[in-house]
Amino acid sequence: MKIVVVGGTGTIGRLVVTTLRARHETVAVGNTSGDHQVDVKDGDSIRQLFKQTGRFDALISTAGKAYFGAFAELTEREVAIGLNDKLMGQVNLVLIGRDYISDNGSFTLTSGILSYDPVPHGACLSLVNGALDAFVRAAAIELPPGLRINAVSPGLLDESAHALGGCFPGHETVPGQRVANAYAKSVEGRLTGQVFKIF
Amino acid sequence: MKIVVVGGTGTIGRLVVTTLRARHETVAVGNTSGDHQVDVKDGDSIRQLFKQTGRFDALISTAGKAYFGAFAELTEREVAIGLNDKLMGQVNLVLIGRDYISDNGSFTLTSGILSYDPVPHGACLSLVNGALDAFVRAAAIELPPGLRINAVSPGLLDESAHALGGCFPGHETVPGQRVANAYAKSVEGRLTGQVFKIF
Repeated sequence: MKIVVVGGTGTIGRLVVTTLRARHETVAVGNTSGDHQVDVKDGDSIRQLFKQTGRFDALISTAGKAYFGAFAELTEREVAIGLNDKLMGQVNLVLIGRDYISDNGSFTLTSGILSYDPVPHGACLSLVNGALDAFVRAAAIELPPGLRINAVSPGLLDESAHALGGCFPGHETVPGQRVANAYAKSVEGRLTGQVFKIF
Repeated sequence: MKIVVVGGTGTIGRLVVTTLRARHETVAVGNTSGDHQVDVKDGDSIRQLFKQTGRFDALISTAGKAYFGAFAELTEREVAIGLNDKLMGQVNLVLIGRDYISDNGSFTLTSGILSYDPVPHGACLSLVNGALDAFVRAAAIELPPGLRINAVSPGLLDESAHALGGCFPGHETVPGQRVANAYAKSVEGRLTGQVFKIF
């Protein structure tokens, strides 16, 4: 399969690419590095990306930012960061990607544990992750027959514990390889409309 | 208690107002009717509303639109309708309402069944409802002590079955009064960070 991994230069994305490239053609897409670059906030940038990659069998997104900060200081401006980037960036990869995906292809997005298990300063990420989980459940029942869509919802990675552990008090970390395997399960399996909770 | 019901002129909102006004001071807010008017898409309109209502003990929102239509035709433009209206409208009622709510006050938002149990044409509503459910769980742990926030997630109302039942194939309808009671439970009870699923 030809698999495009948007966010393929990040912590999770690199593990996903390493896991899948042994048996597939992988294309790693980053903001500023990787085989191709994209700004997921910009629909035209996404269209340009897919013109460069051409047709693909699977699209994985491990991309997207959202605001992390005190709820007390939150205004609609901070919420909009995640809506435009991690949420609509990934939704738009699907909406635009429909024109480039092969029959029987799959989309796999990334949400995260905070929609179920919130932490202080995480409300914007919680909101975005909850939206993504619900979106894949809904999109799955309307995609053309054969096409599939899932989300992977990772907990805090072992690999990120040193940098981010203080923001996730008491959270148990998960090995990055377990998270990467969930993307492989989504792409190589047959499930659709699922949220793979890896936490 | 003084209770502001944004959307208080709609199908659910009217039942909520009727249920609560026997024992509280209720203020019904609509788009174009009601005791006051607001455009929830516009932060300035929300600020203007709260200047008119003054301080309140509870804010209930039963307001908000999202696009309902075939996934095949969906672009970011249609998704944005729900992001700006039902999602950010309600989030902004909370973010701005923090300056007007009494100590020990409560916010109660409205999501809906489609985040769990999607129907054809409902992906935008599913996405928005999932975001709202996750937002209240996260906001609850960061609101100042005493303040609470919940969401009511209603199924299709008996009262809406005639008009909308065809869009919800096989869904069981719920009496509007059961839904209205959930708002009373949120306002008059002590729970926070909850999604009251009435379906």
